[in-house]
Amino acid sequence: MTEVDFIVFLMYYMCKTALLWRRSVMLDFPQSISITEEGPREGFQIEKGLIATARKIQFINALSETCLKRIQVVSFVDPRRVPGMADAEEVVAGIDMEPGVAYTGLWLNEKGLERARATGKLTLEGKISLYPSEQFLLRNNNRTLAQQTQYMHRVLDSYKAHGIPVERGSISNAFGCNFEGDIPLAKVVATVGEVLDIGARHGLGIKELSLADTMAWATPLQIRRTIGAIREKYPDIRISLHLHDTRGMGIANAYAGLKMGVDMFDACVAGLGGCPFAGHAGAAGNVCTEDLVFMCEEMGIRTGVDLERLIECARLAEEIAGHPLPGSVMKGGNLTKLRRAAQLN
Amino acid sequence: MTEVDFIVFLMYYMCKTALLWRRSVMLDFPQSISITEEGPREGFQIEKGLIATARKIQFINALSETCLKRIQVVSFVDPRRVPGMADAEEVVAGIDMEPGVAYTGLWLNEKGLERARATGKLTLEGKISLYPSEQFLLRNNNRTLAQQTQYMHRVLDSYKAHGIPVERGSISNAFGCNFEGDIPLAKVVATVGEVLDIGARHGLGIKELSLADTMAWATPLQIRRTIGAIREKYPDIRISLHLHDTRGMGIANAYAGLKMGVDMFDACVAGLGGCPFAGHAGAAGNVCTEDLVFMCEEMGIRTGVDLERLIECARLAEEIAGHPLPGSVMKGGNLTKLRRAAQLN
Repeated sequence: MTEVDFIVFLMYYMCKTALLWRRSVMLDFPQSISITEEGPREGFQIEKGLIATARKIQFINALSETCLKRIQVVSFVDPRRVPGMADAEEVVAGIDMEPGVAYTGLWLNEKGLERARATGKLTLEGKISLYPSEQFLLRNNNRTLAQQTQYMHRVLDSYKAHGIPVERGSISNAFGCNFEGDIPLAKVVATVGEVLDIGARHGLGIKELSLADTMAWATPLQIRRTIGAIREKYPDIRISLHLHDTRGMGIANAYAGLKMGVDMFDACVAGLGGCPFAGHAGAAGNVCTEDLVFMCEEMGIRTGVDLERLIECARLAEEIAGHPLPGSVMKGGNLTKLRRAAQLN
Repeated sequence: MTEVDFIVFLMYYMCKTALLWRRSVMLDFPQSISITEEGPREGFQIEKGLIATARKIQFINALSETCLKRIQVVSFVDPRRVPGMADAEEVVAGIDMEPGVAYTGLWLNEKGLERARATGKLTLEGKISLYPSEQFLLRNNNRTLAQQTQYMHRVLDSYKAHGIPVERGSISNAFGCNFEGDIPLAKVVATVGEVLDIGARHGLGIKELSLADTMAWATPLQIRRTIGAIREKYPDIRISLHLHDTRGMGIANAYAGLKMGVDMFDACVAGLGGCPFAGHAGAAGNVCTEDLVFMCEEMGIRTGVDLERLIECARLAEEIAGHPLPGSVMKGGNLTKLRRAAQLN
């Protein structure tokens, strides 16, 4: 190799590295995202007064007309702890299931899983759920970390026995906890490792990882850092975000996720929701579906969702809840009509 | 020059370009930001019922205790068009001026300027205001584009005569208009050019440029593109953002600005405000000061503002307005106390 050959080779190598690095830095928006609508489940669990079963069904049926592809409709939890979910079976039995829409439910133990299975109508998907915050786990699921791991092993056997697919891991409180404070990044990454280990022991290839900002501690910078740290160790896992908007950071956090290429989000129409065991004094609420759809569509990211119909659902949610809900686009309006009117001017 | 010399030179040049390009792409958060609080002016102009002068003064005095360095307290506009501002002089006369805080006012014509000067208490700063949307200009200022340019020339002479400094340009509706629709990027950049030209004709070096999303059309991507396009042509101008939160994008837009190195923001405590002539049917509201302060401080960007006191001001604003205001952190709470409690656990 001559001196010139060597330098040319070096230049080629430098360019290649620069391009790879550029890709990692500039990794930009996904072309489209998929949204799991959790308004019915999150909303009906947190609203103070009991909502009539027929109203819940009406709301879910309206959501089915918006082209949303996944709707979490109920949770199967202890009705003494979450009275708003006591009618979960009746709700599921009553909804008109739209072909092509996956209707899902949430459970935290085997009894809940049995109830979900017994409906015979839901799309059942298992997930491996771990909690970096034991304090929250005790309050939310009444389990220690060790008990949660034991539970996961037991329930994964049940999933296998019943042919329920498991492709997803889930980390609650991935960005901070009202009871434990900041969650060190290393602990979050280690928890991801535990999720994958548990999966591997059951022969499961976990492809998706849901990071939940259960108590709204995240900022966009923390979203960036957390996803960055996880990707560095586990580059192939597809990340989804479950964001709460309690401190007004929801949409900004979603944007930070989009910038990192995240293409799966949970969201709640009208900004419904909140966790009953999160220990929030004030307003709760998840990131608002129609605000997220608005942002994405305006930025050229496809959501597949009919924004006008979604806004109608948000207004219906407000009517059912009987008080103002935090969503913004439902009040500020979509830009489509304004654009059309401006063109006619 | 030998072949090797040439290649070494080429490599040096490539590295330098790559570094410059990296700087432009990676240009990251500022270390600190400065905030102009506009809650009193924006809030009192949009609230339906008339607010007692004494309550306005109480609110401004409370804001003076938060370490905010700039507070826009009133506008001097036609009381027939904006009845909530009819008592502007009394408000200014009544406030306890905190040393080191600049109290500013807004005016749209010479009469307003005279009223502001007559108070003898305000920090007077001129600016060159242009509007890419003539439709809004007609509604807000009752002028055509040509008339606005003529007015700017006249008022700049007044500023000079009265020794009022002019360092700032201002572009309203820089991201879209309810009456004219999308504003082409080229039009925004051209309007910046006109601002600088007008300044140059009066011997003024315009150092700052305020971009206003008057009608909440912006998304984070548009913030990035607009600032990028302006910086490409005018790299040295310092940009400030005036963001409305009507469609829930305020904090995400501020984040996109921070990522581009923007270090000046207007904001309104509790998310007060909105333009009476913007043609919004639903909720208005500016980006919320305490939510912005929360995001910045959590991301390590200094604001110099006492967040706990600011939250108290937000609650006071809600009490004065007599209805819930859109701010989130005032309801969700700061993390400081939760962190302290978690450490004691």
